[in-house]
Amino acid sequence: MEMELMTYVGLVAGVLTTISFLPQAIKTWQTKSTKDISLAMFLCFCLGVVLWVIYGFYTHNLPVFLANFATFVLAFSILVCKIKYG
Amino acid sequence: MEMELMTYVGLVAGVLTTISFLPQAIKTWQTKSTKDISLAMFLCFCLGVVLWVIYGFYTHNLPVFLANFATFVLAFSILVCKIKYG
Repeated sequence: MEMELMTYVGLVAGVLTTISFLPQAIKTWQTKSTKDISLAMFLCFCLGVVLWVIYGFYTHNLPVFLANFATFVLAFSILVCKIKYG
Repeated sequence: MEMELMTYVGLVAGVLTTISFLPQAIKTWQTKSTKDISLAMFLCFCLGVVLWVIYGFYTHNLPVFLANFATFVLAFSILVCKIKYG
């Protein structure tokens, strides 16, 4: 029972950490202002998330694959804005 | 052999996504400028990471616990700056 609860805690945790990048992406798309965002953070983060996607794919871990694929799309779009707008 | 490689890929992925918050935290501490950072992102992300810490603790998953504990310290310090400097 406690493990079942923890599975839900893990699922909610994964959803929250993934969708958290959506408001930042929307803000960045709208304002086109990225001065306060760290380029090093999003370069390093996107590279890490790509490795999570590869890990999820090759270990047949669908939740890890899907959550990180969605995170990558959002984080990469923020990275592109940062490179474009500086 | 392939699974062993994937374990290393997962470890590097975890280290990268965790330490990526360090350059953002340093930038935020130094500039005290957080206009372009989304409050909703860091609220949502910190809550998700707290749930990952709880998940790692109760499932006795030390890598998940440690990686997310470190991520929380960094992300929460950025959230505090965002609330303080707006």
